[in-house]
Amino acid sequence: MSNPFFKNHGPFKISEIIKSLNIQNNPLSKEHEIQDIKDLLTSTESDISFFHSKKYKNLANNTKASFCITTDSLKSELPKNCLPLLVNNVLVSVSKLTALFYPDSINDDFDHTAIDIVKTKFVDNVKYGRNVLVGENVSVGSNCLIGHNVIIEKNTSIGNNCSIGSNTIIRNSIIKNNVKILDNCVIGKHGFGFFPIKNRNLRYPHIGIVLIEDNCEIGCGSTIDRGSMSNTIIGKNTFLDNQIHIAHNVKIGENSIIAGQVGIAGSSIIGTNVKIGGQAGISGHLKIGDNVEIGGGSGVIKDIPDNAKVMGYPAKNVREFLKDNK
Amino acid sequence: MSNPFFKNHGPFKISEIIKSLNIQNNPLSKEHEIQDIKDLLTSTESDISFFHSKKYKNLANNTKASFCITTDSLKSELPKNCLPLLVNNVLVSVSKLTALFYPDSINDDFDHTAIDIVKTKFVDNVKYGRNVLVGENVSVGSNCLIGHNVIIEKNTSIGNNCSIGSNTIIRNSIIKNNVKILDNCVIGKHGFGFFPIKNRNLRYPHIGIVLIEDNCEIGCGSTIDRGSMSNTIIGKNTFLDNQIHIAHNVKIGENSIIAGQVGIAGSSIIGTNVKIGGQAGISGHLKIGDNVEIGGGSGVIKDIPDNAKVMGYPAKNVREFLKDNK
Amino acid sequence: MSNPFFKNHGPFKISEIIKSLNIQNNPLSKEHEIQDIKDLLTSTESDISFFHSKKYKNLANNTKASFCITTDSLKSELPKNCLPLLVNNVLVSVSKLTALFYPDSINDDFDHTAIDIVKTKFVDNVKYGRNVLVGENVSVGSNCLIGHNVIIEKNTSIGNNCSIGSNTIIRNSIIKNNVKILDNCVIGKHGFGFFPIKNRNLRYPHIGIVLIEDNCEIGCGSTIDRGSMSNTIIGKNTFLDNQIHIAHNVKIGENSIIAGQVGIAGSSIIGTNVKIGGQAGISGHLKIGDNVEIGGGSGVIKDIPDNAKVMGYPAKNVREFLKDNK
Repeated sequence: MSNPFFKNHGPFKISEIIKSLNIQNNPLSKEHEIQDIKDLLTSTESDISFFHSKKYKNLANNTKASFCITTDSLKSELPKNCLPLLVNNVLVSVSKLTALFYPDSINDDFDHTAIDIVKTKFVDNVKYGRNVLVGENVSVGSNCLIGHNVIIEKNTSIGNNCSIGSNTIIRNSIIKNNVKILDNCVIGKHGFGFFPIKNRNLRYPHIGIVLIEDNCEIGCGSTIDRGSMSNTIIGKNTFLDNQIHIAHNVKIGENSIIAGQVGIAGSSIIGTNVKIGGQAGISGHLKIGDNVEIGGGSGVIKDIPDNAKVMGYPAKNVREFLKDNK
Repeated sequence: MSNPFFKNHGPFKISEIIKSLNIQNNPLSKEHEIQDIKDLLTSTESDISFFHSKKYKNLANNTKASFCITTDSLKSELPKNCLPLLVNNVLVSVSKLTALFYPDSINDDFDHTAIDIVKTKFVDNVKYGRNVLVGENVSVGSNCLIGHNVIIEKNTSIGNNCSIGSNTIIRNSIIKNNVKILDNCVIGKHGFGFFPIKNRNLRYPHIGIVLIEDNCEIGCGSTIDRGSMSNTIIGKNTFLDNQIHIAHNVKIGENSIIAGQVGIAGSSIIGTNVKIGGQAGISGHLKIGDNVEIGGGSGVIKDIPDNAKVMGYPAKNVREFLKDNK
Repeated sequence: MSNPFFKNHGPFKISEIIKSLNIQNNPLSKEHEIQDIKDLLTSTESDISFFHSKKYKNLANNTKASFCITTDSLKSELPKNCLPLLVNNVLVSVSKLTALFYPDSINDDFDHTAIDIVKTKFVDNVKYGRNVLVGENVSVGSNCLIGHNVIIEKNTSIGNNCSIGSNTIIRNSIIKNNVKILDNCVIGKHGFGFFPIKNRNLRYPHIGIVLIEDNCEIGCGSTIDRGSMSNTIIGKNTFLDNQIHIAHNVKIGENSIIAGQVGIAGSSIIGTNVKIGGQAGISGHLKIGDNVEIGGGSGVIKDIPDNAKVMGYPAKNVREFLKDNK
């Protein structure tokens, strides 16, 4: 994945990487420079990859990576060009290595580079309120309105004709055109991803971004977390009501409507033209099809096929739900 | 409806209106000036009204409006004094026409008229924090406390002895006396009302306000949206906990208690002396009676009569719920 | 309870106290000075206590308090050294008396003592953003980051290596070391506690604090209310996701993980190493054991023993839940 925002602090020597991961079985015959950490599919021979589940066997068989973090039981799936680096917990090691390449992606401490918009180049072509702060590596298109106390932290691109509500904070995000983000939102913070370790959890780096497509509206008090390895995406013309939480890596299709206080857990994929009623919750890693309607208050814990109407907790076919609850 | 806040940009000539609605069957014999768009009951002969459902047949029979947006199948219910303007989708046309009369009610872009309170007339009779902004057409009574970073946007009236928490944003609202609104709230933004149109939804104008009666408390992080055609009302001495969402047109009676993270969808009417437990959700367009108790986490999807105690999703009589779940 | 933050306005003469409570049966033989109002266990002979339920009979039998607010039917349980003061509603009287001793604990009006951090002693040893305000009686340890628009209101202690996100408000709280509180949180406001009285509720004083132990993370938009008579506590290395509401007096153990939009009602005790899925709700006054796992969206309405995995509304054993919902 080429990262638009987080600075890659590589390349690193493979010997440094092996040392940083505390790996004993050093398979090294000669030194290499490693440019980046990538998934099995997109790695090139200058990258290191990772392989932690048999699900990805086919990708592993064909990876172009020169090195791969994996386990003893999976290593035989890797091709000859790819040397396995054996660890106990692949994802923990990936997390440590991502942090090595992208140290800025772990913590979301406040952006101290942000300065008052009146001291920036935006002063002449943006309509802005009081106490607006702008960080480094920010772009804002034409005809935008930026409300009072807004903080556009570093690594943010805003398109044309956008309106950002007062007190909203945005970082590590691409906002396309004609988007309205209402008051008190937080867009682009890292996801709730970490490895639970007694007394000191290990935070997972989040090198993905938030991408909000054209014509979207995001309601007041909503939070949209950026992705860990992939991006969090809100599709074109999708409207979110107030107090919604969208976790990391979630992708929502176009023309969807999501009512107040809905929560969507990490990595779930929502189709196009989906309607979700207020306070509904969707578990992580699910696939919700196109044209799906989910009743208010539902708890969705499994995939939903296209065109289904569901309701209840756990959510089921709406006619079944109503019959069961007559 | 006489509107306390949004400026009526009328009158408009009926020929202009017909043109703006793209109506083909121009029934016009002579020109008229139209002052306002109103419902069937309150329209006078200088207004235009709308009629979209047989439910309102009796009101239609007796309307005083000179013109009425309706459909071919409903037009025969209108009296002789009222000329039908035929459209395919009455509510979309009403939305367009309301936007013509009240263009300021569609979008909630930040209020750029707001200036630092130290430059206003309130500087001497209000106790205020840092970075407080006040828009046009704002009044504040005696003995009020306005927290840090509060934004009182245009069209807001605050009574006596009120306390507004830090970071709270208020617009298009009437706050009566002895009201406490805690930190980080957004009061008076437009509701989540629009017509879904592929690639570009049509926003519904919200010309109603939020009215918060005497002695109420609104918890931190809550959002109360203003009404579309009617008002959103919080009755006297009703207390709301944190992170509550009250949608447009909702009316809550007096002396009610609403616990944290509750959501009430658009246009529902809640009685007096109602208790609602944490995280409960109430669907739109429902009627909840007086003295009702709704258990925490409930999902209410139908009307509830006076004095009932309900729980569950869908919510049912609490004894039944407990028996079914022993 | 010795209170770290709220100023005790005592001592008061017992005759003043009796008068303020409107008590008719004045049992007074001579005047006393009362230092504080405390529970039955911790009261000394210079304190007044209260006894409102037979549950606390054993504590009542052995209290050292010289006076006790109670009812006619309970008074016989008090020892000879303790004079009963008879009232109709013990807790209402306790509330009034606590307000007499701790008048600052009732309302959470904005802290007008807060001044710009650049004018404080913190200017040199804290890294801070724009528009940061600091109230009286605040301490901040070394190596802390305080985001833009943060308000550290009076009575707050922050340890070393903490990061406070932008727009967050903290008061009446002790934050230990290595704690991250993300953007838009409100920590330490009074709980949603009051006695419902028609037309004018009686607010309950909250003299407890919020205590956040080492290595915790609190997600964006979360609210943690301070305790009424005891403290609200987040145990060491416990992570909270976004938009979570923790009510007054809740205590959460160490190494717990709480996903987005969870709500925990007042006075519930959560064990160590507990995992709570998104949008789950936990009723008040419950005890959740160690190592418990609660599925997303669950509604917990009774105690859960150690090591249990539950799901559903009402929450039950997860295998049972899945079987019932096949």
